[in-house]
Amino acid sequence: MSLIIKNANLYGENIVDIKINGEKIESIGCNLNDDECEIYDAKERLTLPGGVDVHTHMSLDLGKFVAVDDFHTGTRAAACGGTTTIVDHIAFGSKESYFDEMIKKYHKMAKDLAIIDYSFHGAIQDSRDKTLELMESYHKNEGIVSTKIYTTYGGKLNDDKILKILKKAKETGTVVCVHCENDGAIAELREEAKSKNELDPIYHAKTRPAETEAEAINRLIYLSEIAGYPKLYIVHTSTELGLNEIKKARKRGVKNLYCETCTQYLLLDEQKYIDGGNSEGIKYIMSPPLRKKSDQNALWQGIIDGEVNVVATDHCPFFYETEKLPYKDNFYDCPGGAPGVEERLELILSEGLKRGISLDRLIEVLIANPAKIFGLYPKKGNINPNSDADIIILEKEKYVIKQENRHSNVDYTSYEGFESDYKVKTVLCRGKFVLSEGKYLGVPGYGKFIKRN
Amino acid sequence: MSLIIKNANLYGENIVDIKINGEKIESIGCNLNDDECEIYDAKERLTLPGGVDVHTHMSLDLGKFVAVDDFHTGTRAAACGGTTTIVDHIAFGSKESYFDEMIKKYHKMAKDLAIIDYSFHGAIQDSRDKTLELMESYHKNEGIVSTKIYTTYGGKLNDDKILKILKKAKETGTVVCVHCENDGAIAELREEAKSKNELDPIYHAKTRPAETEAEAINRLIYLSEIAGYPKLYIVHTSTELGLNEIKKARKRGVKNLYCETCTQYLLLDEQKYIDGGNSEGIKYIMSPPLRKKSDQNALWQGIIDGEVNVVATDHCPFFYETEKLPYKDNFYDCPGGAPGVEERLELILSEGLKRGISLDRLIEVLIANPAKIFGLYPKKGNINPNSDADIIILEKEKYVIKQENRHSNVDYTSYEGFESDYKVKTVLCRGKFVLSEGKYLGVPGYGKFIKRN
Amino acid sequence: MSLIIKNANLYGENIVDIKINGEKIESIGCNLNDDECEIYDAKERLTLPGGVDVHTHMSLDLGKFVAVDDFHTGTRAAACGGTTTIVDHIAFGSKESYFDEMIKKYHKMAKDLAIIDYSFHGAIQDSRDKTLELMESYHKNEGIVSTKIYTTYGGKLNDDKILKILKKAKETGTVVCVHCENDGAIAELREEAKSKNELDPIYHAKTRPAETEAEAINRLIYLSEIAGYPKLYIVHTSTELGLNEIKKARKRGVKNLYCETCTQYLLLDEQKYIDGGNSEGIKYIMSPPLRKKSDQNALWQGIIDGEVNVVATDHCPFFYETEKLPYKDNFYDCPGGAPGVEERLELILSEGLKRGISLDRLIEVLIANPAKIFGLYPKKGNINPNSDADIIILEKEKYVIKQENRHSNVDYTSYEGFESDYKVKTVLCRGKFVLSEGKYLGVPGYGKFIKRN
Amino acid sequence: MSLIIKNANLYGENIVDIKINGEKIESIGCNLNDDECEIYDAKERLTLPGGVDVHTHMSLDLGKFVAVDDFHTGTRAAACGGTTTIVDHIAFGSKESYFDEMIKKYHKMAKDLAIIDYSFHGAIQDSRDKTLELMESYHKNEGIVSTKIYTTYGGKLNDDKILKILKKAKETGTVVCVHCENDGAIAELREEAKSKNELDPIYHAKTRPAETEAEAINRLIYLSEIAGYPKLYIVHTSTELGLNEIKKARKRGVKNLYCETCTQYLLLDEQKYIDGGNSEGIKYIMSPPLRKKSDQNALWQGIIDGEVNVVATDHCPFFYETEKLPYKDNFYDCPGGAPGVEERLELILSEGLKRGISLDRLIEVLIANPAKIFGLYPKKGNINPNSDADIIILEKEKYVIKQENRHSNVDYTSYEGFESDYKVKTVLCRGKFVLSEGKYLGVPGYGKFIKRN
Repeated sequence: MSLIIKNANLYGENIVDIKINGEKIESIGCNLNDDECEIYDAKERLTLPGGVDVHTHMSLDLGKFVAVDDFHTGTRAAACGGTTTIVDHIAFGSKESYFDEMIKKYHKMAKDLAIIDYSFHGAIQDSRDKTLELMESYHKNEGIVSTKIYTTYGGKLNDDKILKILKKAKETGTVVCVHCENDGAIAELREEAKSKNELDPIYHAKTRPAETEAEAINRLIYLSEIAGYPKLYIVHTSTELGLNEIKKARKRGVKNLYCETCTQYLLLDEQKYIDGGNSEGIKYIMSPPLRKKSDQNALWQGIIDGEVNVVATDHCPFFYETEKLPYKDNFYDCPGGAPGVEERLELILSEGLKRGISLDRLIEVLIANPAKIFGLYPKKGNINPNSDADIIILEKEKYVIKQENRHSNVDYTSYEGFESDYKVKTVLCRGKFVLSEGKYLGVPGYGKFIKRN
Repeated sequence: MSLIIKNANLYGENIVDIKINGEKIESIGCNLNDDECEIYDAKERLTLPGGVDVHTHMSLDLGKFVAVDDFHTGTRAAACGGTTTIVDHIAFGSKESYFDEMIKKYHKMAKDLAIIDYSFHGAIQDSRDKTLELMESYHKNEGIVSTKIYTTYGGKLNDDKILKILKKAKETGTVVCVHCENDGAIAELREEAKSKNELDPIYHAKTRPAETEAEAINRLIYLSEIAGYPKLYIVHTSTELGLNEIKKARKRGVKNLYCETCTQYLLLDEQKYIDGGNSEGIKYIMSPPLRKKSDQNALWQGIIDGEVNVVATDHCPFFYETEKLPYKDNFYDCPGGAPGVEERLELILSEGLKRGISLDRLIEVLIANPAKIFGLYPKKGNINPNSDADIIILEKEKYVIKQENRHSNVDYTSYEGFESDYKVKTVLCRGKFVLSEGKYLGVPGYGKFIKRN
Repeated sequence: MSLIIKNANLYGENIVDIKINGEKIESIGCNLNDDECEIYDAKERLTLPGGVDVHTHMSLDLGKFVAVDDFHTGTRAAACGGTTTIVDHIAFGSKESYFDEMIKKYHKMAKDLAIIDYSFHGAIQDSRDKTLELMESYHKNEGIVSTKIYTTYGGKLNDDKILKILKKAKETGTVVCVHCENDGAIAELREEAKSKNELDPIYHAKTRPAETEAEAINRLIYLSEIAGYPKLYIVHTSTELGLNEIKKARKRGVKNLYCETCTQYLLLDEQKYIDGGNSEGIKYIMSPPLRKKSDQNALWQGIIDGEVNVVATDHCPFFYETEKLPYKDNFYDCPGGAPGVEERLELILSEGLKRGISLDRLIEVLIANPAKIFGLYPKKGNINPNSDADIIILEKEKYVIKQENRHSNVDYTSYEGFESDYKVKTVLCRGKFVLSEGKYLGVPGYGKFIKRN
Repeated sequence: MSLIIKNANLYGENIVDIKINGEKIESIGCNLNDDECEIYDAKERLTLPGGVDVHTHMSLDLGKFVAVDDFHTGTRAAACGGTTTIVDHIAFGSKESYFDEMIKKYHKMAKDLAIIDYSFHGAIQDSRDKTLELMESYHKNEGIVSTKIYTTYGGKLNDDKILKILKKAKETGTVVCVHCENDGAIAELREEAKSKNELDPIYHAKTRPAETEAEAINRLIYLSEIAGYPKLYIVHTSTELGLNEIKKARKRGVKNLYCETCTQYLLLDEQKYIDGGNSEGIKYIMSPPLRKKSDQNALWQGIIDGEVNVVATDHCPFFYETEKLPYKDNFYDCPGGAPGVEERLELILSEGLKRGISLDRLIEVLIANPAKIFGLYPKKGNINPNSDADIIILEKEKYVIKQENRHSNVDYTSYEGFESDYKVKTVLCRGKFVLSEGKYLGVPGYGKFIKRN
């Protein structure tokens, strides 16, 4: 198919025509015309590259619970919200297994379901020789150029193992994504809280104080210094204290350090655990927890300053009625995670512009930076000749986020009642309309695995 | 004329074709073809938007001396070095006159001579009501959206007048460019040095210590805070101490503050006053003077950090043999200023890349930022459909800067013997070849005055 | 006379006896006894060295107005508040005169009146050779080892002259005390305010914004750097912004820099200009003006951090009824200055301890540091064998500051209604009781001029 | 015994007489006389309170090795170097035991041997309920108001246990002294180094890089924040990076945080591992290792800035010939620790004054602060009526530190060849001469356990 998007207000800066030939962008110009081409008029709208969300957990299997969006419903929601590529964090397998097993499983899970393009991060819970070899071979041969590690939870790694992995990553160029929370302090605080019968959702926040995040971030950065600065990517940074560790490190010369935050840490805060009572509060059990207003403001400032590089979602939904609500009076047993893949782009654009952040900068954190950091660029994350024709077209129009207008499989949205100033009207994924004037046209299996580099 | 530049390595990132229609860029694409178009093959080369130098002093009349490049020879040198737009700082007229007289004079001076496009900054030496009104009307009606003021020299303004001008600029949106040096301290230090018979060129540096710059920068920033943050542009920042004042101010929330440095402060240092004896040292009499290696490094770091926004030249040449050399043993009488408009782009690219700075960032400080800050963007400073076809094409090829290969009217270059890693081969100004495969094709009078906004 | 103070709780740390022999302290010990000595029992009380206030303006002659405390009533108030030494800032003479004339006049003014010991700062309004010579000879021979200069008002000095004085001070070791406010900006803001008929006391604060202080402080510091770091003492620092300039300078290695604030900037804020209407607000016309709560807090924090070295008073009272009140609706004509010499020690102790500052630290800023910086130590500012027996004994007892219990000549106190946690009960100046169990015993002329070194 | 020290130049500030009655100071005065008193003339010398070294390891039992100074030889060395009180870190017992057993053992070990006064820190390797109870009862009843914990070595504690102890310490007021090094990173680096056969002493430094210290310091500080700021005392801070974590923490408001460094980190650097070959380098195996010159300078600057609170020694000697030297080509098996208790006061005074640090400040870090932080003040750490008569008298006289003039049991000194500008001539401990005009008069068993508070 050939298509010309006429009058595209590209990046809100320049009115141009965009010619698409098959899956690729062919040219950008004034008055492009071709009789054989389909024409789409983007006049009066905003045209951007498709969004890139590098932190999702489709079908994440926690044992007792499994995240309720699979690669079909999850990427459907993503597409409808203007995201055309995701990079999903795979689950851990058994302690004995190696992570390649899980990647193979994920390939199968995604292949016939995905609406949009996708990739996976590895997930490593040990530093056995074979694990490190796999990290290298997957990096070189399979387009998996990033891996996830944890400082807490079941797959948590001790500092000696983390250092070993970081040293290997320095050799291979792999991006190491780290969930940073101090395991011991949280364990002790939770034990103490439980012993005092502190079971309400707000104690989820109180038992994971900002210090636990900042401590672990600082620790990872020092380990990365010792390892000679492999690419270190701090996922879901949620606190001012944590961000300050990153800023401080950069100031003393730490290199290859990237900071991600997520929609929820920019738009929600810990009052959510309290305001609607436990039955509302339980919706927001996720780790890290929602934080204070001052943390929110610091993270927005981090976007302005260039200290926060990426806004992702950590999309990992569980059913409210059947999986969250039952634990409203004992949050310890509630599955952790919340939806968000659909709302990210529209709401961060809206709120970011309201806060006086330039459109340019917002495009960086939502679209271009995640593509660049994780090896998707220039295929993804920009609109230029030769790039994939992943294009979204937004109407400047106020509308209210409601569960009725969502496309995920889950039964609630964390952003119920939020007003967006933009609405994604049309979405192209590799030249194909996935959304057209608000009409959803996604086809499961159209989305392809992207080998990254 | 229609032209297609084939295989352009645009920004060093993407191989594309660029189609030019008359003075404008029409489209950017893969495999653009048009039988009626001239074809230029840019294969293996680097293609960039034309350089923008916002600090030149063509034909500056100092009374006893007049800068020896006029709008013909000066813009010829600029073009040959890859700069396609300049913004010139006009001279002061008599104390009684208003600056519009001088602008009219400059229009006449430039009109039939300029090879490339140009604009002017105003220059204000008082805060009379009519001056402020002129600032406003020139901003609104004449495309002069910036003005220069001085804290030293003949046209120096006291703080009360500066504040008045800044308050007016806040209303009108005018960018106030300030030459920042503490007048009193320099006067006292010069007087003391003269009394001790300290006449060698190095005393030019010693009598204008870093503190005199940093002090004045800080002062201007505070005045700008009181005025509610008009656009304040610090010209030729030359010291780490001065830059630190800017960084500190931004950290406490100061807005609309821009920092320019110049080629010479990035590539030369105060050893130049000493190494070749006085007869060499006298070449570098300019204000601010050349600084220390540590200042150089801090300014480069400022480019990396985003704290330095623009690299310009302060191009203001005087003949070495007849105007500089005679004062080698008494620098006080030597006219201040040096050439540089031709070397800026090639040498800053070369040295910047060597220092590990991204090409992107270098393009910002040399081309995009000056265009954006001074209202030339998106007409100038980028390559996109609708923009002026100001395009430069560079060969990656080492060559040595020598007086023999320079195009200015002056009889020396400050960068004699410097090796450039790039050579500007071809230059288009509004679609017309000014330089073609190294052959100069400039036509005096082709350059137009650009109304800025 | 010989006296033993028994059971003195010295510095709140140690219960000791203090033996005084004539004007001097002879020994400090446990169970000192001497049958020939008078005994004073200080049990249950706090014993400290006498306070040192290095910023007063007794009988300051402003032309139309003269400060209404002379060396008798002013030092009476000082003594009753626990201050046993003052250093007074002399007035300027005529432009033609030299400052030694004024010092001679002040010697005459003080000699027969002073209740407690005193010294003078010089005051310099030019950089004539003879002025600099006098600065030196007064430093060497007359015990005047400090001088005052201004960046605003009639005697204001330009930067070239300031630099000249600082260079001389570097040679002589003289402490240069500077009143730091940006003259031009204030002039412009006042002119603008007047033109808008903004005449209420609050405009006194609005037309002298924090930036005007911070700018001048920064400027002075840079001039001092150029001069090689003479002793530079910033008087009456009133803003967070100004203090931050001092902190930043110290961090980059600036030496010999001292920061004074005054009681009023620690206890009062700009609401005082508004809360009681103009007739109340006019009481607080002084320069710098009262500032914001946030400035207050920053200055207290500066005391904790060691960044603020001295708390003084700038005591300079004018009669409320006859000299202040008439200008309540046009503050521009109101004489600037307010009383405070009596309240400083008691109120800063009370509030400082409430804020969790250690007694040790408060003693430093109120007593020891001013003595050390200005060459009075160890004669003054401490209780040790050989020191002058300047001792104050305070009862921990709440009482309310009221005009009825003040000892100045003026008809109001800036601290009406403030509660003090301590009351000075007994004051010894060089071994003699000036206050004894609350009974005032001062004798005009007992106070001596102290040659400093 | 009664004694008058005549003409004591106390703190280098004031010439006074000091009268001692039995074990206590009775008075300080001019011209104290008492016919019944012995007289000691301290004229021309410097008189200070006795030094306080709060970090020693007498007879430390490491299993294969035992530190070779016991409470006799170790306190003899201390006394001869001007230290009159030590606080010793007890060893761990078996995992099953509680730390009170070890304290009882140490009481026995010290009782009949100590020349000077002493106390013990606890040492905790678990967070069992009884351990926490013992910590409390020892604090309240036994004068043991501090404890040691480790983040590495055998008795290392995980973060959950550390947090539990810190929370308890917050309640009891106990000072928690922490050895801060990242265990995992060091383990991994040592393993890697061993596998590469890197066995020379310099690898001791390379496998414990600055980051391992800084990381652990930061972690402890965050845990202390979570615990509500118990007293946290970082022992033997050795790196600029580590000190910067402390500075940064204080800047964000962290309270009750104390920083100790040791003589060796101020006077020696890692060249020592290399310069004399392995047989010399092996002398300096201790943890943390010696660091870089830049770390040394940062620590000295920390003393100036008030960021470093205490200089101690970590005195823990092993015989060079028989216990160190055999491991010169395989440092992994070498016992860690070095002597220093004798040299601390003289050498830090000498070098500190050379670096322009005030005597006042040096007295704080060597004498007053350790006494204050660990509850020995005002009994120890100052010269005032009522304090213990622990007094040292120093001659300003250059002499060279050599093994021949040392008093420890060990067979080398880390400071061989260092020149001291001061020599401790006379030492009084509780009124008794332990050293008199260089003649050693110590009596084992005279030293008493001091109950701290």
